[in-house]
Amino acid sequence: MNESRDLYVSSPSNPRLKALAGLRRRRTREETGQTLVEGHEEIRLALDAGVTPRTLYLCEDLFSPSGRAGSQDIGTQPELVERLRAAGVEIVRLSPAAYGKVSYREGPDGLLAVVDNVGVPLGSLGVAGDHWLGLVAQGVEKPGNLGAMLRTADAAGVDAVLAADPVTDWGNPNVVRASKGTLFALPVASGTTDEIRSWLARHDIALVVTTPETDVLHTDVDYTGRVAIAVGSEKHGVDDALLAAADHRVRIPMHGRANSLNVSVAAAVVLYEAVRQRASRLAPADPA
Amino acid sequence: MNESRDLYVSSPSNPRLKALAGLRRRRTREETGQTLVEGHEEIRLALDAGVTPRTLYLCEDLFSPSGRAGSQDIGTQPELVERLRAAGVEIVRLSPAAYGKVSYREGPDGLLAVVDNVGVPLGSLGVAGDHWLGLVAQGVEKPGNLGAMLRTADAAGVDAVLAADPVTDWGNPNVVRASKGTLFALPVASGTTDEIRSWLARHDIALVVTTPETDVLHTDVDYTGRVAIAVGSEKHGVDDALLAAADHRVRIPMHGRANSLNVSVAAAVVLYEAVRQRASRLAPADPA
Repeated sequence: MNESRDLYVSSPSNPRLKALAGLRRRRTREETGQTLVEGHEEIRLALDAGVTPRTLYLCEDLFSPSGRAGSQDIGTQPELVERLRAAGVEIVRLSPAAYGKVSYREGPDGLLAVVDNVGVPLGSLGVAGDHWLGLVAQGVEKPGNLGAMLRTADAAGVDAVLAADPVTDWGNPNVVRASKGTLFALPVASGTTDEIRSWLARHDIALVVTTPETDVLHTDVDYTGRVAIAVGSEKHGVDDALLAAADHRVRIPMHGRANSLNVSVAAAVVLYEAVRQRASRLAPADPA
Repeated sequence: MNESRDLYVSSPSNPRLKALAGLRRRRTREETGQTLVEGHEEIRLALDAGVTPRTLYLCEDLFSPSGRAGSQDIGTQPELVERLRAAGVEIVRLSPAAYGKVSYREGPDGLLAVVDNVGVPLGSLGVAGDHWLGLVAQGVEKPGNLGAMLRTADAAGVDAVLAADPVTDWGNPNVVRASKGTLFALPVASGTTDEIRSWLARHDIALVVTTPETDVLHTDVDYTGRVAIAVGSEKHGVDDALLAAADHRVRIPMHGRANSLNVSVAAAVVLYEAVRQRASRLAPADPA
């Protein structure tokens, strides 16, 4: 591990740890432009997406005996540490007490990285091709839902995820965690609903808004062109401004008593309808 | 509120509260055959599904000022209390300190009910019609995921949800909560994987198992007959025994880096493909 060269912090009251724990606050993240990523798999995904951490904090006492996380073969924890070291990342070793001060997840695996925060200005987000697919999340409150949507968007091959009137910042550690690191693999941007509406119009992107207040099913609309699919907040759904801007209003059929789906599940159902249509309608016609 | 007739408990050390808090433990739930449901919306859904609580614990100090929960018009909290009282449910009023001792959710709304635990023996679960649709969850670990699947299954019109080799019991309060009370609206049963395999075969139900290890897409299979869709544990997916029992193995296409979907999202994507096929293929041909 070449640990002789690394800084070692044993005291939980070390001021460096206090600054680190401060990144759990949105204001600190916005002021510093940095955020936290904890966990072997999440850090590896960030790295694979081209995000090189500024600093890696590690606690070997928490490494799994095999050095492996989960069932996927993503290499061992010491291998990831060496990969980061080779990339010039500052490595700081922590005592279990010191690590406990900065860890924010259950069942920590002893790896915590500081990275530059994500998100690009809406105006700089490019749109290429005739089949651009986006997801718009308006006012989603729970970081876990936003993270889950990023994970699904990544799997569905979405080109960008836009937060309209965001309640949670992209760098929220619980967004990062729930996204399983896919936050770093996807272009994300934020804006007011009006800014996003204008941006979509400027790029000729059709806006499909999910709402219970329509008879059009989500399977009745064509998603093969440039399309953005919008979902709203957990409590209130999309607002009137976004509804008014919609090219299509669609609902997901519901047969049960509760009459609502989790917002990230709703996003997944509509996104995968788009995936299905694209696979069946675009692939055979592709000149390639 | 006619509260003069109700039992009132002010001390957090009242032994009745200790017994109540004990229902957070699986063993106590299994021994007593009871579980907890907290929250206005969840209790109302249980009631609508025909589940009459044994006892309702309430703390009026925690009622929302309007007496309403969320944005849905589901009546006020005092209205629900009166409805339960009219149904003969024992009502116990608690001080805020006493309620705090037994509440298990963030942002409690002052309503907590004790109900009979759910789940029927697999053998007593009936199967009617040519279009029975079921969901099998094998070894799912997180109560939140199991609850989210129940909510989606309810919306998708699933006939029953089966837990194979369950890690979490249906009465886990976090399952109840994540299910938004839909747990009580759906037939649920548990069994070993072998019991469930036999049961499915006996009822001529085709088993569609999701796995990354196939080239068949989830959209390539016909879900219009008697079908059960199976998903596996968060870490390991379905096991070899369930894979071997499958009539169809299907994968959800993934275009991203992380290469995995949350298990409840995966269930939703396949269930709603079944809903889509049933709407487009069954409805026009229906003699009705």
